[in-house]
Amino acid sequence: MNFTHARRACICGLVAALIIVAATFVVHARSTDSTSPSVIRLAPPAPVVDEKVRLAELAGRRQRIARELGPKSVLILFSTEPRVYANDVDYEYRQENNLYYLTNLKQKGATLVLLPGNESLSEVLFLPRRNPAAETWTGHMYSPQEASQVSGVKEIWDASEFDSFVAALRNRQPFQLKPEKVLLSAGSTADARASVFEKLFAVAGKNDGDLFMLLPRVGDGLEYRQEEKFAAGWTRTPTGFNLKDATPIFVALRLRKSPFEIALLQHAIDITTEAHERSWLAAADARWEYEVDAQVAYTFKLRNADHWGYPSIVGCGPNATTLHYEESQGRVTPGELLLMDVGAEYEHYSADVTRTFPVNGKFSPAQADIYQIVYDAQEAAARASRPGARKSDVHRAATEVIKDGLLKLGLITDRNSMQYRLWFMHGTSHWLGMNVHDVGDLPGAAEPKLEPGMIFTNEPGIYIRPDALDNLPDTPQNQKLIAAIRPAFEKYKNIGVRIEDDMLVTPQGVTWMTQALPRKMSEIETFIARGRREARK
Amino acid sequence: MNFTHARRACICGLVAALIIVAATFVVHARSTDSTSPSVIRLAPPAPVVDEKVRLAELAGRRQRIARELGPKSVLILFSTEPRVYANDVDYEYRQENNLYYLTNLKQKGATLVLLPGNESLSEVLFLPRRNPAAETWTGHMYSPQEASQVSGVKEIWDASEFDSFVAALRNRQPFQLKPEKVLLSAGSTADARASVFEKLFAVAGKNDGDLFMLLPRVGDGLEYRQEEKFAAGWTRTPTGFNLKDATPIFVALRLRKSPFEIALLQHAIDITTEAHERSWLAAADARWEYEVDAQVAYTFKLRNADHWGYPSIVGCGPNATTLHYEESQGRVTPGELLLMDVGAEYEHYSADVTRTFPVNGKFSPAQADIYQIVYDAQEAAARASRPGARKSDVHRAATEVIKDGLLKLGLITDRNSMQYRLWFMHGTSHWLGMNVHDVGDLPGAAEPKLEPGMIFTNEPGIYIRPDALDNLPDTPQNQKLIAAIRPAFEKYKNIGVRIEDDMLVTPQGVTWMTQALPRKMSEIETFIARGRREARK
Repeated sequence: MNFTHARRACICGLVAALIIVAATFVVHARSTDSTSPSVIRLAPPAPVVDEKVRLAELAGRRQRIARELGPKSVLILFSTEPRVYANDVDYEYRQENNLYYLTNLKQKGATLVLLPGNESLSEVLFLPRRNPAAETWTGHMYSPQEASQVSGVKEIWDASEFDSFVAALRNRQPFQLKPEKVLLSAGSTADARASVFEKLFAVAGKNDGDLFMLLPRVGDGLEYRQEEKFAAGWTRTPTGFNLKDATPIFVALRLRKSPFEIALLQHAIDITTEAHERSWLAAADARWEYEVDAQVAYTFKLRNADHWGYPSIVGCGPNATTLHYEESQGRVTPGELLLMDVGAEYEHYSADVTRTFPVNGKFSPAQADIYQIVYDAQEAAARASRPGARKSDVHRAATEVIKDGLLKLGLITDRNSMQYRLWFMHGTSHWLGMNVHDVGDLPGAAEPKLEPGMIFTNEPGIYIRPDALDNLPDTPQNQKLIAAIRPAFEKYKNIGVRIEDDMLVTPQGVTWMTQALPRKMSEIETFIARGRREARK
Repeated sequence: MNFTHARRACICGLVAALIIVAATFVVHARSTDSTSPSVIRLAPPAPVVDEKVRLAELAGRRQRIARELGPKSVLILFSTEPRVYANDVDYEYRQENNLYYLTNLKQKGATLVLLPGNESLSEVLFLPRRNPAAETWTGHMYSPQEASQVSGVKEIWDASEFDSFVAALRNRQPFQLKPEKVLLSAGSTADARASVFEKLFAVAGKNDGDLFMLLPRVGDGLEYRQEEKFAAGWTRTPTGFNLKDATPIFVALRLRKSPFEIALLQHAIDITTEAHERSWLAAADARWEYEVDAQVAYTFKLRNADHWGYPSIVGCGPNATTLHYEESQGRVTPGELLLMDVGAEYEHYSADVTRTFPVNGKFSPAQADIYQIVYDAQEAAARASRPGARKSDVHRAATEVIKDGLLKLGLITDRNSMQYRLWFMHGTSHWLGMNVHDVGDLPGAAEPKLEPGMIFTNEPGIYIRPDALDNLPDTPQNQKLIAAIRPAFEKYKNIGVRIEDDMLVTPQGVTWMTQALPRKMSEIETFIARGRREARK
């Protein structure tokens, strides 16, 4: 999708609206932290978007999905099943992303059905019926009116009827719905409801219907288990409907972010920026990594983030060299670097921001050597980021700088080999959005070209893991390499640096959405010095 | 289980040990909050128990479970499956309680097998093999030595062999294990491993073997889904083993807490106490409920709690009258009460503590009327708590006080009816331990009598929900009731009070494990006044 003139006007309109909204807000952020050093950039008030704009956006998303599905299809989207913590306690509920993308509904038990070929009844929401007397135990449930106000879907039926709805579809029978099971209607008649599948049955009779569901089969497949179970039941007998995965259709849309989505993600980033800055100052007095992480937990809740987008990584010294170090059980040691990779999630959009800073506020010469390479790699990556380029181009740009730097420091001996992978093990970029590792790449499909509205991370890193040389296969070549790089290894051992920023593709290149957070070594040192001086007063 | 003399001596020894450990700790809790008002009771250092004591306790638990299982049985305990947050991100991993109870292992993928009838090979741990090169991505994995040090289990086999282990059991065949799949051994021979099931096969031949698993089927059954799937596969063909639910055996043990468990739960309570006190002071400047909850998130992380034991309930004014109000999206209003029901979890033990306090620091006369009834009900419940009594006795004692109080205030007209359920909808007590609603009661079994070492909550409450009278069935009787109580209802409307403490049964009665946290109205007012005065300086 290219940004047409109309679309760009829309962005400007939205940005202007946001500025107006922001100006009318009292920045109440100050209220609970009047003692915070003034250097900390408090998160601005949350973006408030006009309800009409939001509902138009949701309706537009549903229309575009329906267009891609085609008239021979039915789409069924389930709400996420609650995730059990233990016994009768669940983790905080988080809606399935694609259902949220189409409805903004946050409650369990809702099922959305799209019927693109049925002009008069093209979308139906199945919703559990409220029980006010029970809600003191279960928490508030949407009334049909509320669910309609949130989602914009106007046809709402009792969730208890979903199974017979599916049975009617399956058996190609009229769908008999008792009037009292219609919780809200845009004016559907009993006849219209009974014949809701009429056109579908015609194509199903030729074995040409499509039943779309989310069946991405990622990882160990636990996320979409109920969909898989439903699909297994569906395919057991012939139905005339081909079961298809709707994931690619959603991926194509979600990869291009609207101004509305960008505003939400920017707010998640702003909250994360505040969390970083609070943590950097608190690290001066922290004895354990988890004490620093406490500032993150505090800030995310204080600013009403939904949750984290992923578990915080807070690693000091050698712990910074483990990529997915989530324990936060190590000591915070002056003289070491502290790597923080944290991200708030706001209205389902996750920030993803890493900074690496010296606990005592000053980079040592060895730390600065490594840091500067990563910084320069980031800059090169940003320069390579523009419409038409690919994530692989961005990665290549970062990698070239890292190779040069590692060679110069004596940590590799051959810049034209894979040696650099010893110290830079991961990619430079991933898509960012409703997942921290957001959708965008599809197995077997060509790598997408960057387009305005896409958001990705820029996160090179160098990790001098203390056991890195021990784990190399014992070959003559490796023995030679180890001997050659041993002095540099000893000098830089236990230093881990990652810098990660969130980049929005623009017509001209990229915007650093994370630009408010100090990133240059001198900026970080100045920030820490000023903030800690103020805190000591 | 009664506390024998030996056991009491053991408690004293442990308590003494804890005191010594505590004395040798520098109370580093201060380090990151030198600006906190001194009235706040900071959580003391975490209890440190001698490794030999801990391992002896774990071994003792396994022995007692094995004794209950009997020699004709095999027990299989799986680790919890990771709970998906979204895509490739999981929620914080939390081990299955019963596996943790027997092993203290916190890593996924471990499976414990107990074979009580096999003297030489009575316990085996299946453990995923480490992959140091991958651990920068996956996080640290236990080495077999570490898993043995943590759990005390000395026979550790590669998790990749679990399926063939089960197949051998199922098909009554010798179990062929390649030597390289033995990750750690207490000296088992190949012969011993091949004949690991020998005695079991003898009983299975008479259809008299027992396969125990966790199959509690609580709630919607999502917690033990992998066990249910395994069980369904197992029962599909005859095996000679009766599939049995191990839950009741664990319930009986876990209901009686050891001094070691009590020390861990006490620490969870101490962390929770600090969280409450920070929140009460912060509420003075808070505009939104989530800003108060931020103090809870901060304190739990600062003190290295595993997690919450259940999502925080922070409700102001009318929100305090919804029992499971977990949104924290309302305003904090001076003049209203704020109800906070929060609990840290530490090493799998969850606190559960509620206080209700006035946002402005002073109870109004109407608020005080309600609060005093709940307070008195708690006192009565505590007096009724002693060895030999039951939770139902405790509830009855609280209920009698509540009925008297409601009648006096004019909120009910008949103390010998169920009218009080309109304002006090829940029970007074539940067991507390590794679940916030801990195991202890079994369907169909008699209610257990209180014994020393049992822990339960004491949590009466009164909730004058603004819509309470609207939801009553329209009967002449109710019309009369509504007319009679309307004036009192209007006076007390929107007031919700719960006070919840955690009680440890002792030989003499009960100990209030939550006694450090102010509970009397005058104590709460004094605490808030002193703390806020100090904060303003």
